[in-house]
Amino acid sequence: MKKAIYTLIFGIAASYAMADDAVPTVATNADAIALVQTHANFLWTLVAAALVFFMQAGFAMVETGFTRAKNAINIMMKNLMDFSMGTFFFWAIGFGLMFGASSTGWFGTTGFFLSDWNPVDGDPWILAFWMFQVVFAATAATIVSGAMAERTKFIGYLAYSAVLSALIYPIFGSWAWGSLLNGSGWLEGMGFIDFAGSTVVHSIGGWVALAGAIVVGPRLGKFDKDGKARAIPGHNMPLAALGVFILWLGWFGFNPGSTTTADTSIAMIFVNTNLAAAMGCIAAMITAWIMFGKPDIGMSLNGALAGLVGITAGCANVTPGSSMIIGIVAGILVVFSVVFFDKIKVDDPVGAVSVHGVCGAWGTLAAGIFDMGGFSASVVGVQLVGILAAFVWAFGCGFIMFKIISMTIGLRVTPEEEMEGLDYGEHGGTAYPDFQKASHM
Amino acid sequence: MKKAIYTLIFGIAASYAMADDAVPTVATNADAIALVQTHANFLWTLVAAALVFFMQAGFAMVETGFTRAKNAINIMMKNLMDFSMGTFFFWAIGFGLMFGASSTGWFGTTGFFLSDWNPVDGDPWILAFWMFQVVFAATAATIVSGAMAERTKFIGYLAYSAVLSALIYPIFGSWAWGSLLNGSGWLEGMGFIDFAGSTVVHSIGGWVALAGAIVVGPRLGKFDKDGKARAIPGHNMPLAALGVFILWLGWFGFNPGSTTTADTSIAMIFVNTNLAAAMGCIAAMITAWIMFGKPDIGMSLNGALAGLVGITAGCANVTPGSSMIIGIVAGILVVFSVVFFDKIKVDDPVGAVSVHGVCGAWGTLAAGIFDMGGFSASVVGVQLVGILAAFVWAFGCGFIMFKIISMTIGLRVTPEEEMEGLDYGEHGGTAYPDFQKASHM
Amino acid sequence: MKKAIYTLIFGIAASYAMADDAVPTVATNADAIALVQTHANFLWTLVAAALVFFMQAGFAMVETGFTRAKNAINIMMKNLMDFSMGTFFFWAIGFGLMFGASSTGWFGTTGFFLSDWNPVDGDPWILAFWMFQVVFAATAATIVSGAMAERTKFIGYLAYSAVLSALIYPIFGSWAWGSLLNGSGWLEGMGFIDFAGSTVVHSIGGWVALAGAIVVGPRLGKFDKDGKARAIPGHNMPLAALGVFILWLGWFGFNPGSTTTADTSIAMIFVNTNLAAAMGCIAAMITAWIMFGKPDIGMSLNGALAGLVGITAGCANVTPGSSMIIGIVAGILVVFSVVFFDKIKVDDPVGAVSVHGVCGAWGTLAAGIFDMGGFSASVVGVQLVGILAAFVWAFGCGFIMFKIISMTIGLRVTPEEEMEGLDYGEHGGTAYPDFQKASHM
Repeated sequence: MKKAIYTLIFGIAASYAMADDAVPTVATNADAIALVQTHANFLWTLVAAALVFFMQAGFAMVETGFTRAKNAINIMMKNLMDFSMGTFFFWAIGFGLMFGASSTGWFGTTGFFLSDWNPVDGDPWILAFWMFQVVFAATAATIVSGAMAERTKFIGYLAYSAVLSALIYPIFGSWAWGSLLNGSGWLEGMGFIDFAGSTVVHSIGGWVALAGAIVVGPRLGKFDKDGKARAIPGHNMPLAALGVFILWLGWFGFNPGSTTTADTSIAMIFVNTNLAAAMGCIAAMITAWIMFGKPDIGMSLNGALAGLVGITAGCANVTPGSSMIIGIVAGILVVFSVVFFDKIKVDDPVGAVSVHGVCGAWGTLAAGIFDMGGFSASVVGVQLVGILAAFVWAFGCGFIMFKIISMTIGLRVTPEEEMEGLDYGEHGGTAYPDFQKASHM
Repeated sequence: MKKAIYTLIFGIAASYAMADDAVPTVATNADAIALVQTHANFLWTLVAAALVFFMQAGFAMVETGFTRAKNAINIMMKNLMDFSMGTFFFWAIGFGLMFGASSTGWFGTTGFFLSDWNPVDGDPWILAFWMFQVVFAATAATIVSGAMAERTKFIGYLAYSAVLSALIYPIFGSWAWGSLLNGSGWLEGMGFIDFAGSTVVHSIGGWVALAGAIVVGPRLGKFDKDGKARAIPGHNMPLAALGVFILWLGWFGFNPGSTTTADTSIAMIFVNTNLAAAMGCIAAMITAWIMFGKPDIGMSLNGALAGLVGITAGCANVTPGSSMIIGIVAGILVVFSVVFFDKIKVDDPVGAVSVHGVCGAWGTLAAGIFDMGGFSASVVGVQLVGILAAFVWAFGCGFIMFKIISMTIGLRVTPEEEMEGLDYGEHGGTAYPDFQKASHM
Repeated sequence: MKKAIYTLIFGIAASYAMADDAVPTVATNADAIALVQTHANFLWTLVAAALVFFMQAGFAMVETGFTRAKNAINIMMKNLMDFSMGTFFFWAIGFGLMFGASSTGWFGTTGFFLSDWNPVDGDPWILAFWMFQVVFAATAATIVSGAMAERTKFIGYLAYSAVLSALIYPIFGSWAWGSLLNGSGWLEGMGFIDFAGSTVVHSIGGWVALAGAIVVGPRLGKFDKDGKARAIPGHNMPLAALGVFILWLGWFGFNPGSTTTADTSIAMIFVNTNLAAAMGCIAAMITAWIMFGKPDIGMSLNGALAGLVGITAGCANVTPGSSMIIGIVAGILVVFSVVFFDKIKVDDPVGAVSVHGVCGAWGTLAAGIFDMGGFSASVVGVQLVGILAAFVWAFGCGFIMFKIISMTIGLRVTPEEEMEGLDYGEHGGTAYPDFQKASHM
């Protein structure tokens, strides 16, 4: 197989790009040019998908870094499984609901089990596009994992993960990104701007996470009897930082890859993505420094993520300067949001609701406000409709779903298991057997 | 250097793609199109090579995560060195044996020291192709590291690593992937299907690993006096999980990169790779859950790898649906295989023989069974010949080689050194000096 | 947004590559070919930028792995911030100084705040090029972090990081890589060869690091009262090794990406980069084995980095064989250099001065000596001028800058804070709260 390509050098490759070895004409050249561009589009979309896939590792590292050693196996298993099960359920159901033919604008009704593609003469773009979309679906799923960490039953988590990948995420997605085959989603039809998913992916994940954190309740010891939040420090800051670097890298697939085209427009998206992340990180560090007296690592890391989430909607339609403002606001916002959720006694161990829910909403609003085409109140109005629709849909569905899981297969481990750590109770192991645990553990 | 490209914008770039600034014609356009496609092929092959290179980090993290803290430096050094020495020996000897001109179909006899390329007018494709192949050779080498972990002398490991990169891997490779210059390998000539190396890379590595694990013998304390296997838990589950995510990412270079062409066929290979990995992970988790009563992290992680190894042979000639079946079977198989090797008292600390040897064989068989062209007993027969040839060659050579190493420079550390950990004895250090070791260590 | 691309299949894509749907001609085909090549150039440059960005994670892991657990948060924060602040200052000032229009050859005077690009009709290449350059600037900045680890005040580090990204790095860069718009730097005008930055990035970072290490002084306990260096072992060898693997991966963007063009020349650059790294690693291991009696992991890891730094200048103008020699010399050199700096009582916890400063100089010299065009004393002479200019500029500016910081906002933490660890004093946290610290910590 590999040998064949060896003959594909310079002159000989000409025949490759053409339909056959006939003498080239202007028309066959035009077709061959289009084919090479198509190859570049496939290449970029799939390499970007690989980068987005790697964000799963980033989320796993951030989540375990920000939580306790006794739950590290559980966090790994949840991240591994929401990608694996997400792959299965998005293949079976989600992709059809999100991108299948739709006559209503509310969900698709074809393309389940990748049936819009067939092995004989199927368009390979369907496969490339599915690959890019499945890693997005899994990103939405994995966001919830962090907010519900350290007290959620594994089986309950699996059930949630399936429902999100199969139903909650793709149905909202079809509203905003519409059918591949005909028509468009109702939000899309209104002109809703969400280029790479501040709302579609991050807010949806964030609001389901909020519902989950509320239904499962705070970790034991998170709030003292006066209701004051107590810090439960994460167990591994280098892994958390590694996770953020991996996520930042993955976002260079997430945002510019959403062009699904290899063209020059990806340059501005790269720059905007990077500027927003950097400014979010700096802004969160300074905000935390002023509020708490020290440059806190957790807030700084979340600030970078906040900037990234914030620029996701508008990365293709705002200037680099606007991207910096979007990042700065996201970085400040995430600190206040984390404090706010602590104050209202929602226990979100990693700040997922603030980073993805709140900053996703901010980014979606900002994509309207800072539109390079100029400010338009009606554009901003549509953005607000989308933001609100996402909250109602995701928080609503999430709340009902978690309540049902809670009442049936169960959502929360026993207090004994929680104290001992989920690694032993749920998975029969311990993540770091060779190290002596600190006395408080 | 960097400035020059700045002028390569739109219109001006036209002249770049042509031989000179002459007025374009249909013929020069056809050549220019071929050249741009060639550029895309180089780009894809080399980016894919970079992803496959990164699998070295994945193997290192999986292997150290699944073994004890006292041997972590040793594992890092082995992974670092099998890539570095593999690079040297595959440059000097292996590439020539595998892809040099061959009149027999059993090994090549030209191209040692990259001598098929010369600086004046050498074809740059030889360099791109070498880069892609060297990371494959190193993958085969690194598989053995895990199976022999925690008791093998470093100098013995270096000797093995050289022989595998220089001889064992490339000679088998020449049978299946043949010469670049003329003729083809004997297995290839029979129609053997192994697109990206379930057998060529993974089974070869796995069967050498089996020979090594047998010759070096089990770790002290692995089997009690009744012969029952005792679990020796790995020391860092987040690193093991990170390693699997890195490997999964790297496989998006390994399988679709094996086209060494940027075209639309890579889409199905991406999708097949991902589906098999996800289903392997789910299947192994469920199998372990049923067998041991808990969703075990080690088995789940190995299940993902099993799915990836399984789809490697057939990723370009089976449908997505078949890929899922291949992944499921691999995920179940790996659990039973790990239990089996424990039962026959082969101590493989990370399950490398099961993941790479057994699932590599399964994947090679499956590439025949599920061929999109339809089932053919003769195709399956050829696959069986290849599977058997790989076992005989790799296990045979490996066994002889390890026996010779054992009788000369020595293969196993002393029991004292093994108890204390190889990090101190072999490398004069300790991987985690700032942490208190658990009392059993 | 994503849906649109779905129609870009085969035939239809033809119209995409052309200006409009008019009937293609030879001339429109020639333009379309140039455009597709431009797309490939953007794609490669930006994917390479993403890989170079990821080197930040590599540096963070290497630095924290080679230092103590009590300073891990501080190291993460410094790496996070030198990228984030580097992004800001290179956007505001550095890019203009380095690549803006210059009439003197000493620095540019336009393009601050990305003002050479505008949203209406700006050339997107400016953005792609900025993205590639900003990750280089941040690499120079992050090198210093390691050499000054474990005793530098965070606020002092931030000040340094800003000055390097805004002034020290870009001004030297303009000498060697010149203006984008007109003229060229004075070193460039002499024919100075530094393809990807052995001097521009690595030596500049290394010599500033040397100035920093001297001004801030050695860590408490590094040298005993007789002046003999005492080993202070790093706390996490798997993370250090992971960091080196990540850096090696990132270098496949750093060196071949410096073509900023998707063409066949990247193949040799990939191969040269890999060969030098592998040989550097092997050479350093053997050198350390001979000198200290054991194959030391720290030296082996630094040997790989030394080879990578060494080949960075000459990766595009030396043969693979020469690359191996360059790597071997770098690997030997780095061991002697580390010993040397210990002897003269410069405390560089991670060996950054040796790896980046010394091996950067060696690589720059070697790019002249081994030039594929043949040996020329005048070429080598120019290389020496560049090496010397880099030392005088970077060490000089660095020394003055650190002295000023030291006398104003302060450069070093108190001895009490240093003993306790910077994580608590500077950041109010601890990186690994769940683990029992070893008694010496």
